[in-house]
Amino acid sequence: MYKKEISKAVINRLPRYYRYLGDLLEKDVVRISSKELSERMKVTASQIRQDLNNFGGFGQQGYGYNVEYLHSEIGKILGLEKKYNIIIIGAGNLGQALANYVDFERRGFIVTALFDVDPTLIGTQVRGDIYIHPAEELEGYIKSNQVDIAAITVPKTQAPLIASDLVRWGIKAIWNFAPTDLNLGKEVTVENVHLADSLMKLSYRLSTKKNQMD
Amino acid sequence: MYKKEISKAVINRLPRYYRYLGDLLEKDVVRISSKELSERMKVTASQIRQDLNNFGGFGQQGYGYNVEYLHSEIGKILGLEKKYNIIIIGAGNLGQALANYVDFERRGFIVTALFDVDPTLIGTQVRGDIYIHPAEELEGYIKSNQVDIAAITVPKTQAPLIASDLVRWGIKAIWNFAPTDLNLGKEVTVENVHLADSLMKLSYRLSTKKNQMD
Repeated sequence: MYKKEISKAVINRLPRYYRYLGDLLEKDVVRISSKELSERMKVTASQIRQDLNNFGGFGQQGYGYNVEYLHSEIGKILGLEKKYNIIIIGAGNLGQALANYVDFERRGFIVTALFDVDPTLIGTQVRGDIYIHPAEELEGYIKSNQVDIAAITVPKTQAPLIASDLVRWGIKAIWNFAPTDLNLGKEVTVENVHLADSLMKLSYRLSTKKNQMD
Repeated sequence: MYKKEISKAVINRLPRYYRYLGDLLEKDVVRISSKELSERMKVTASQIRQDLNNFGGFGQQGYGYNVEYLHSEIGKILGLEKKYNIIIIGAGNLGQALANYVDFERRGFIVTALFDVDPTLIGTQVRGDIYIHPAEELEGYIKSNQVDIAAITVPKTQAPLIASDLVRWGIKAIWNFAPTDLNLGKEVTVENVHLADSLMKLSYRLSTKKNQMD
């Protein structure tokens, strides 16, 4: 579809563009200049033009961007015109929090089931027809249902083994919340959410700020 | 302390270095070459040397890096020799999940209290002496306790108002999980965790991969 290799930095910005444009749409904004978009996004106007040129532009000189069109085109680039089924491995607080995020569903990410080893959790209805299943049923579930993404919210020590099982059973995309990096080969796409990393960035900024004031 | 302005890209990598070196320490690894470190980190060896040169080096030609020393020095740069008290605004699943992450505490990030408006949650003991307090007590709590970081895990619509209250009451660092960017001025440091953004990066990669195969 897109011949050019898109840089990781551009791809990292696309969800933000999509989110901002979605906010504008909700406020019934019809068009936006690249200058206004750049002020909201804290990215230079020329950066925005460059980013969007990767995908063929979308802007019109003197008019700016049509919010609805740009939102929908970026959505297509991000693959959001499709639906993705998600299962969650680990039904503790974090797993259940993810299952309850209605925002994901609105964007086409549908949580279909959670899995856990804790017998006191199994059978619990998390929301609608989303239930916590026993971990032993995971392999069978993956093989008999369409599963696009598996979220891993188990402790660090268990994550690598579970991840390699998931891959063996056919999972191609992993959303990893365990505080360890998973090395699963090139056919599997992994997105790590390292919550402690973002805390460390806060402490870095707090302590350098303090040093500047000292 | 450090005169040079450190680039955001370097700061983004520091928590990863810290995490990897911590893993090595747990395995009693004493030293590591920049080549080995680079293979684990998936960053070039020269990138690692450059990154660490920002803070004065730490490596020795022909020896590599002393794992414990490098871990502790990066920890200092990240401000991890201090303790940070965290309060969590919003005691739903996500808020409670954050309060239960023992990994944070190990690094000096101590959750001291959660706050919520839901009367059925108030008074709940989340862990140890961490309780869910009524939202009305938030201002008083901040003014009479040392609070370094406030995590926001409330719905998107409520986040901006709560954030500006927090800042008015003296909070200098916000860890924001609400799917909206907060604009709070230069004195406040904000770290956003946009979970939907990482899902969109997964869907982007899944859909481009699929297109390549088509």
